Amino acid sequence: MSEFNNVTVVREANVYFDGKCTSRTVIFPDGTKKTLGILLPGDYKFNTGAPEIMEILAGEMTVRIADATEWVPVKGGESFQIPGNSSFEMKVTVLADYVCSFG
Amino acid sequence: MSEFNNVTVVREANVYFDGKCTSRTVIFPDGTKKTLGILLPGDYKFNTGAPEIMEILAGEMTVRIADATEWVPVKGGESFQIPGNSSFEMKVTVLADYVCSFG
Repeated sequence: MSEFNNVTVVREANVYFDGKCTSRTVIFPDGTKKTLGILLPGDYKFNTGAPEIMEILAGEMTVRIADATEWVPVKGGESFQIPGNSSFEMKVTVLADYVCSFG
Repeated sequence: MSEFNNVTVVREANVYFDGKCTSRTVIFPDGTKKTLGILLPGDYKFNTGAPEIMEILAGEMTVRIADATEWVPVKGGESFQIPGNSSFEMKVTVLADYVCSFG
């Protein structure tokens, strides 16, 4: 197990896709935020404002960033980056547990 | 929105019922723990070790504690208590966001 120490956690969940994707917002002493989230098996598309790093703690998916033609497999222990003001798609085949970092 | 400040959050999720119930463990400076969780619509049964307080932040369900005959409706803004070394059942009809306190 790994931890975030000395943080603030927003109690209310972020809920997307009828609960197939949910997350909790964690705020660090320097003001930066991360989310700890769950993705149930399924297909997803998200837009980005700031650039994002998706760290997959567990699970399996394929990912396509913006208009790329290629779907890239990503599994627990791996991560991927998405530019700002962009989008990404995920086809989750095994429930995914993730940490999303912004900026 | 409400927050927990100056806490530790375990990064890896707790996953139950094939992901229909997931939660994050929050550890407080005094060593006590709470979980922040999501329950998708469905039927659930949990056992308790320590007594628990389930605070429902959002959602709708009916709850039956241990061998009670009666199912009690619980919705966002309400909470219920479960004795230690017991069990409780939930029939969740609207996705529920909860805080579980122990002891």
